[in-house]
Order: sequence, then C-alpha cells, then structure tokens
Amino acid sequence: MTTTARDRMLLAKDAARTIGLLTDADKRDALRAIADAIEAAATDVVAANRQDLERGRAAGLSEGLQDRLRLDEPRVAALADAVRDVAELPDPVGRILDERTLPNGVALQKVSVPFGVVGSIYEARPNVTVDIAALALRSGNTVVLRGGTAAELTNAALVEAMRGALAQRGLDPEAIQTVDEFGREGARELMSARGIVDVLVPRGSAQLIETVVTQSSVPVIETGAGVVHIVLDATAPLAWARDIVVNAKVQRPSVCNAVETVLVHRDAADRLVSPVVAALQAQGVTVHGDAIVSRLADGVVPATDDDWATEYMSLDLAMRVVDDLDDALDHIRRYSTHHTESIITEDAANAERFLAEVDSAVVMANASTRFTDGGEFGFGAEVGISTQKLHARGPMGLAELTSTKWLARGAGQVRA
Amino acid sequence: MTTTARDRMLLAKDAARTIGLLTDADKRDALRAIADAIEAAATDVVAANRQDLERGRAAGLSEGLQDRLRLDEPRVAALADAVRDVAELPDPVGRILDERTLPNGVALQKVSVPFGVVGSIYEARPNVTVDIAALALRSGNTVVLRGGTAAELTNAALVEAMRGALAQRGLDPEAIQTVDEFGREGARELMSARGIVDVLVPRGSAQLIETVVTQSSVPVIETGAGVVHIVLDATAPLAWARDIVVNAKVQRPSVCNAVETVLVHRDAADRLVSPVVAALQAQGVTVHGDAIVSRLADGVVPATDDDWATEYMSLDLAMRVVDDLDDALDHIRRYSTHHTESIITEDAANAERFLAEVDSAVVMANASTRFTDGGEFGFGAEVGISTQKLHARGPMGLAELTSTKWLARGAGQVRA
Repeated sequence: MTTTARDRMLLAKDAARTIGLLTDADKRDALRAIADAIEAAATDVVAANRQDLERGRAAGLSEGLQDRLRLDEPRVAALADAVRDVAELPDPVGRILDERTLPNGVALQKVSVPFGVVGSIYEARPNVTVDIAALALRSGNTVVLRGGTAAELTNAALVEAMRGALAQRGLDPEAIQTVDEFGREGARELMSARGIVDVLVPRGSAQLIETVVTQSSVPVIETGAGVVHIVLDATAPLAWARDIVVNAKVQRPSVCNAVETVLVHRDAADRLVSPVVAALQAQGVTVHGDAIVSRLADGVVPATDDDWATEYMSLDLAMRVVDDLDDALDHIRRYSTHHTESIITEDAANAERFLAEVDSAVVMANASTRFTDGGEFGFGAEVGISTQKLHARGPMGLAELTSTKWLARGAGQVRA
Repeated sequence: MTTTARDRMLLAKDAARTIGLLTDADKRDALRAIADAIEAAATDVVAANRQDLERGRAAGLSEGLQDRLRLDEPRVAALADAVRDVAELPDPVGRILDERTLPNGVALQKVSVPFGVVGSIYEARPNVTVDIAALALRSGNTVVLRGGTAAELTNAALVEAMRGALAQRGLDPEAIQTVDEFGREGARELMSARGIVDVLVPRGSAQLIETVVTQSSVPVIETGAGVVHIVLDATAPLAWARDIVVNAKVQRPSVCNAVETVLVHRDAADRLVSPVVAALQAQGVTVHGDAIVSRLADGVVPATDDDWATEYMSLDLAMRVVDDLDDALDHIRRYSTHHTESIITEDAANAERFLAEVDSAVVMANASTRFTDGGEFGFGAEVGISTQKLHARGPMGLAELTSTKWLARGAGQVRA
C-alpha cells in the first residue's frame, strides 16, 4: 500500500517510462477513455463536490470561491469535452527540431521528448485537476497533482475516474497521482522532489506562485500575475483607444490579461481622457486617476501609489498622464509584471520602439491585451501564461510541456 | 560609490536596457575591443594572477587547482582569441522563431531576445570570467560574475580590462559586474536576486552546482556531472567497442563527457572483456570490474557499489556484465546523471530502443561519448552542457542564452 507522498511520486516516475513511449494514437485513445470515464462518473463527482461545498460553507468559504469549486452535471460534461479537445491536438512529442551531420559522419537529431513527470500545485478549482492531467498525458508525461484542500473529495473522484480509464485501456494508472491527502506536507514533498518530478507548474494566486517559486528546488514554470498596461500615445485614434481599453478591462476583468493601468500621453490627454473614462464608467468601471485625469474627467477616484502596482482583477482601472513615451516606458519598467503591454498609436516608429524596448512576454501595438491567450494564439489548449524567461514565455501550449533530447547515430566514430 | 552586491546587480539590470538593443555589428565591435583590452592588460593580469597563486600556495591550494588558476602571457592571449571567436558567431538575438496571423488580422511574431542579466557562480578558473562575459554580451545580456575567491585578483584585473573596453567604445561598462569582493554574501545575494538576475549558470564541482540548484530562487541552468555509460551489446564489433571505450575514457578523462562505466552484454563478455580491458590498461586505465570481469581479464580491481555511482574524472573505469539490454537500461536508470550514454551494437532495433528509452541529454549509438560538446556539435562556443530538462538540454550554444518575446501588431482589434 502506498503510504507517502514520495511513494506516489516514485510511482509517477516509474509510469513515465511507458507513458513516454506511447504512440500518438495510444495517447488519443487514453484521453478519449478518460473523457468518457469522467462523464460516466458525473454522479459520484457531483456528490463528492457537494460534500466539499458543504464543508466549505461551514468553514466560511466565500461565495466566489464556492462558485469556482462548484461542479454540476453540465460542468462535468464540459470538463470531459475539454479532454476530448486536447485529444485532437497534434502530438508534441517526436518533432525533429534540429538535424545536422558532423564532418565525421555522425548524424545528430534534436527531438522533442516528454519531461517525464509534471507536478502541479493549485487552488480549489477542480477543472485544473482534469486540465493538467490531460495536457500532461497528451504530451507523454505523467502527473502529480496537489489541489486545494477545499476540493479534496472532488479531485479524488476525478482522479479515480481518470485512473480507472487508464487501467481499463491497459495503461499504467500510476501515471496520474494526487498527493492531496498529505496536505501541506504533500506540497512540500512535491517542491523538494528534484530528480523525481521534472517540472512544477503552480496555478493560482500570486501568493501561491510566489511560495512555490521561492521554495521549490524542482524547476518551476511561473505563471504569474498581470499588472497589464496600455499606453495611449499622442497619436492614438480615439476609437481604437476607447474600444481597446474598454475591451481589455471589461470583457473579463478577473483574468491576468485584463488591463490594469492606462498611461495617456500628455499631448493626447485633453482629447482622450474624458471620452475613454466615460466609456469605461458606462460599463461600470471605477477609474482611479492621477491629478490631471481627475481634472479632465468626472467621477474619477484619486489614485494612490498602490494603484500602480495593483492587479485589480475587478472593474477598476488606474489611469495616469505621462510626459512622453520615455515616461511611459519608465512607468512600465517600474510596475509591470512582464505579462502583456500594448501601445495605441499611429506613429509607426513609436510602435516599433515600444515593441523593442518593453520587456514583457507579449508586447502589442494597436491590439487588445486580451489576445494574450493560448486559444487566441491558435495553440488549441493553454497550460498557462508564463511570465518567466526560462523555457517558456507567454501563452504555453503542449509544446512547452516537452523537453528535448539529442540523438547521435554513428558507425564507430571516435573524437580526434 | 557602489557599496553592495545588490547595487552591482541593479547596475547590470539597468545596463541590460541598452546592451539588449545593440546591433549585431555593435556587439561584435565590443567583443573585439574586449579581446584587445585583455591582451593589452596581459602584464597586469599575469601580475595579479601571481599574487593569487602565492596566496593559494600559502593556503595549501593543490597543484591541480594551481594549474587551473595559473595565467601566463600565452594563456591570456588564448583568452583574447576565444573572445574574438565568439565575436564571429552569428547573433542569436532577433531570430523570428514563429509567425502567425490571427483570423482577425493581428500579426504575431515570436522573436529571440536577450535574457537581460546572466549570473554565473563558478570556481577558480579565470577563463570562465572571460568566457561567460563574452558569451553573455554576444547574446545581448549583461553579466554578474561570482568567481572563486582564490582567483579574486586575477578576475578583478580581467573585469577591469573588459569594462574599460566597453567604456572606450561608448558602451555602458556596468554591463560587466563582479561580486567577488563580497565573498559568500555576494553568492547568496546573486542566488536570491530573482527579478534582477534572469538566469544563473553555475560552473564547477558537483557540490557547487548542487548548492546553487537547491538554494537559488533565480532560475538556474544546471550543468551537471556526467556518470556516463557505454553499453557493449551482444553484437558489438570488437574494433568499435575497443576504440570507442578507449577514446571515451582516455582522450580527456577529467571532463564530464568521458565514460565512467561500461556495461557488457553477457553474450559478448567472453569475446570483448579481455581485449577491451587490455586496451584500456595499455593506456594506463585502472579497470574496476564485477566478478565476471575480474575472471575474464587480468589486473582488474574489484568494483564496489560506490563505483557505479562515481564520476571518476580520472583514468579509472567501472565495468560490469549485464544479462541483457533490459538489465543495462535498469543500471543506467539507476546510476546515470542523464548526461550522455552510448550503445555499441550492430542490432539496429536495439540501437533504436536504446535511443528511445534512455532519458539523457545526449543518447548515442556507435559513437564516442566525447562528442557531447558544443564545439563538436558545431555551435562554435559552449556555455556548458545542461543536464536539466527545462529550457536547455545537452550542449548549450549562444541560442540558449536567449529568451523569447511575442510581438503583436494590430489595427485596433479587440477580442470578441
């Protein structure tokens, strides 16, 4: 009987040997079986979820978190459909990324291979349990999950269904592991499992990600917060400025690619501030402005220094007038979380300068920051949006869940 | 006046803004100026090195370490030439790695960009000071160096020469920083400089690398140890087996791609063990063998379990007879450091199975493990050999010192 989090991780590592060698067709079949099994287990999953919710309510879990946690039959069906979508994506493993023949005839190939074991630490969203497991398996990896304690029974029911589907197809069920029942100790073990777990993907609050990044000796892919900026340059057309800022704030305020701060060029302030603020307010947005913004538009809340560093994730937006593009770039350098920034301008030179100088995962000219998204980029699925520079930056697709390996085929060559 | 390691790192971060935007020609010029400056400073560098060596001798530094530390005029000239070689390499920045136009017309480009600030913690080899600085600058990065205390004066003289060359060309000399004079505290600051230093490359002993990997919150590229295996399959031709094993052990025993353990298929033991051992012994190699090897060849030292896990880095080699390919793969799974392994075989199916199943940075069939090298792979320069799976695996060239950035160019598009 498996008794420790470490035992579970070693089982995942062992299973990675066979999962990593599966064919494209095998992996697709496995995911389709998992999707079917999740649907078949819907009653059990919803029942487990009801227990989690009751426990959560008793413990004073907020309405918002309860909603994230809640699964009903249609939501379970949506989870299964998402797995079927992942099954249809092209296999990221076995791509030949480089090929060269050495002067002595040794043939080299750089090919994409699975990482091996992918770990994930996340909060009480049961959909992550299924998403990460499906993405990991599609890319030939096994997975060790540590979800929030609030979703423990729901996650256990989902994991049981997925493991059952693997076993039914003759695949190693140990490919999907959870360390939820080991609580915080499970998370600690996962963060110190260097040599067993190949990469750790935290998903959740800035605080959770910060904890994992600073405590983990397993390499981490950081999917960070977005203090996202839009710069309205001197030549920004009003229609673009208004439509893009409203879209970037209002369409889905709670996500990391939503804009938080708008910087307006001094020469455009008289022309743009009042109508852009009015358009935002018409959609229910509270604008936190500096002194000039407050003078140019009605109903603006005075901004404090904290506003510039805040990822509101709500219908709030900070707005400041800057002297020029240099001033805007300075502000971004100081406050950006290096996720996404956009400039609205008709000045091509300023657009190119902005694209070159801003040090963020995605830098845009004349487009909504909401486009920073694996689905929008055409990746078919999104593992997360990386705000680090190592390995992956920006929206991550299945390819970012693979590593590489060099293969060398010779005929007895030795080094001179 | 700069007074803390952190101040130095912040200067490097600030300098990264301008260094990252330099043209290819600017970067080449800068490196040529650095090469000239190192040659011009040869007398000062050698004098500083003499002081380091005297201090080292007084402190009981071993002859081997003294040799690594020693710089004379020809060695300084070789350092300068290495910088000139790096200048000639193609610019790794600004490559377009992916391009796609979204259905709404937004044009996306994924381009290679510098990391920003590259940190390196290494031991008393002054050549690393120059190598890492040159490679970092060539790829548009600035650099923070923490070399061994034993080479402190030598490194200071080299850094002074390189910074002088930058200033003379009108470039920001703060692009090259050392935190050597802050001792261990400098190393600690470097490992905790997440958000200032973008990537840390440790170079040196397994112990140094382990310390950095476990203590650093800055993302690390691990350039690890090599317990490298060669498998002599049942069908291994004697000439290939003998030549490759001897080459892989003897040509340069102190490097990470030298073979440490040879696994011989039981069915080939009678045919191969005696001549391969004799060929190794003729080159001065001590063979540590299991019972069968000891029986089949003369002068074999009995191997202990420790031998299988040892990176000798010397004219020692461990040899074991295995039952079959499965047994060999089990042994490798248990003891490999995931650097390089090679199989010698005429059985194409076994070769392909080995290539597919061995989980190492470089996996070979019928070639010497000594080919795992950036120079041999045609990269022109080598930053190190990564034994981790994130970002870079195997020999790293200049491209591995870059990150990526997505650029999006639109005309007012918003997300539907």
